[in-house]
Amino acid sequence: MAKQKIPATPSVRRLPSYLNIIRQIQKEGGKYISGTLIAQELSLEPIQVRKDLAITGVIGKPKKGYPINTLIDAIERFLGWDSMQDVILVGAGNLGSALMGHQEFRLHGLHIVAAFDKNLQKAGTTIHGVRVFSIDDLEAQIHKLGVRVAILTIHSSAAQETTDILVKAGILGIWNFTSVKLRVPESVVVQTEDLSSGYAMLCVSMQSRQDANNGTAP
Amino acid sequence: MAKQKIPATPSVRRLPSYLNIIRQIQKEGGKYISGTLIAQELSLEPIQVRKDLAITGVIGKPKKGYPINTLIDAIERFLGWDSMQDVILVGAGNLGSALMGHQEFRLHGLHIVAAFDKNLQKAGTTIHGVRVFSIDDLEAQIHKLGVRVAILTIHSSAAQETTDILVKAGILGIWNFTSVKLRVPESVVVQTEDLSSGYAMLCVSMQSRQDANNGTAP
Repeated sequence: MAKQKIPATPSVRRLPSYLNIIRQIQKEGGKYISGTLIAQELSLEPIQVRKDLAITGVIGKPKKGYPINTLIDAIERFLGWDSMQDVILVGAGNLGSALMGHQEFRLHGLHIVAAFDKNLQKAGTTIHGVRVFSIDDLEAQIHKLGVRVAILTIHSSAAQETTDILVKAGILGIWNFTSVKLRVPESVVVQTEDLSSGYAMLCVSMQSRQDANNGTAP
Repeated sequence: MAKQKIPATPSVRRLPSYLNIIRQIQKEGGKYISGTLIAQELSLEPIQVRKDLAITGVIGKPKKGYPINTLIDAIERFLGWDSMQDVILVGAGNLGSALMGHQEFRLHGLHIVAAFDKNLQKAGTTIHGVRVFSIDDLEAQIHKLGVRVAILTIHSSAAQETTDILVKAGILGIWNFTSVKLRVPESVVVQTEDLSSGYAMLCVSMQSRQDANNGTAP
């Protein structure tokens, strides 16, 4: 697979949480927001926040900060979240159901339009307002719905086989929650979520905090 | 909250996926693994992999690579995954159940020993082998079990109130899957998972891939 030439991963990953805070201030009637306030809310350094926001092309004004409406538009445009994206979800188990019920996604333009499961008893039911189809209908429904993005929340053992169907049907982006390294053609983007990443961060942070409290930090 | 003085976030986040690949090669009988192979498997640059692994203190040998057993030990020790950690989970809904069923966690020393839910019908049941208690038993069970880490998968509206109980009972690390910025004393570490981060990455990667294919990349 080609190396991805995209802006720094941590910066992109932080943009959604910036967006949440900025929207909150907008709701409260604010017109400007400072990088320092965002930094405080997220326990980051202000310089980091300003660097991250610079990738969206918006520059803050001295003493005033960032114009909120302009900043929200710029972040959403940068992420492609300024229009709704129809997405399908494959694997309507616990994790899939949790994602279908995750209300914040709607704010980010992510619209799960259909789910698929191999369990025939789930076919025809609705989970959090999303219709569930049999996995056998996957290819036909992708064509019918014209979707280009799929969320993969099935068992790892079926991940590659299902990916092959998705790719054949024209899916160009896969948000992969399985632990399988998926083989896809170069035209298809895979974003793999490793749930253990966050746990690694927690463990290392706790260790550092403990060292600091014990006065053993370097 | 104090700024966290810990190794670079992206490096720590990548270590679990390195560990998975290295364990795979170990299973296949390998004694050494090269940074280049790990980089290939994860579509990263080899220099990045070598830098990341350097934080664990292990240096590869020219032409041979890293001694696998030493490297696994070093990563696990760095992450504190060389011994089992008992953890509780609060909120046994879809997401909580998915985490209880996530088998990879066991490999990482994460052992969910009890779950809690406000739904009294769930109390007394077992999900993926984990006993579910009433949320009213939270404080007493934390003391009884002597746990220091909690996974928070409840509804956002109850997040802060539950966090206050956790902190009072002696929890020092919270893996927060709610969208609430939790207020905790400085001695407590919070690792917040923003599910939208991965979606932001997918969107930006797809946009870059499309620009590259259209020859419009900068």
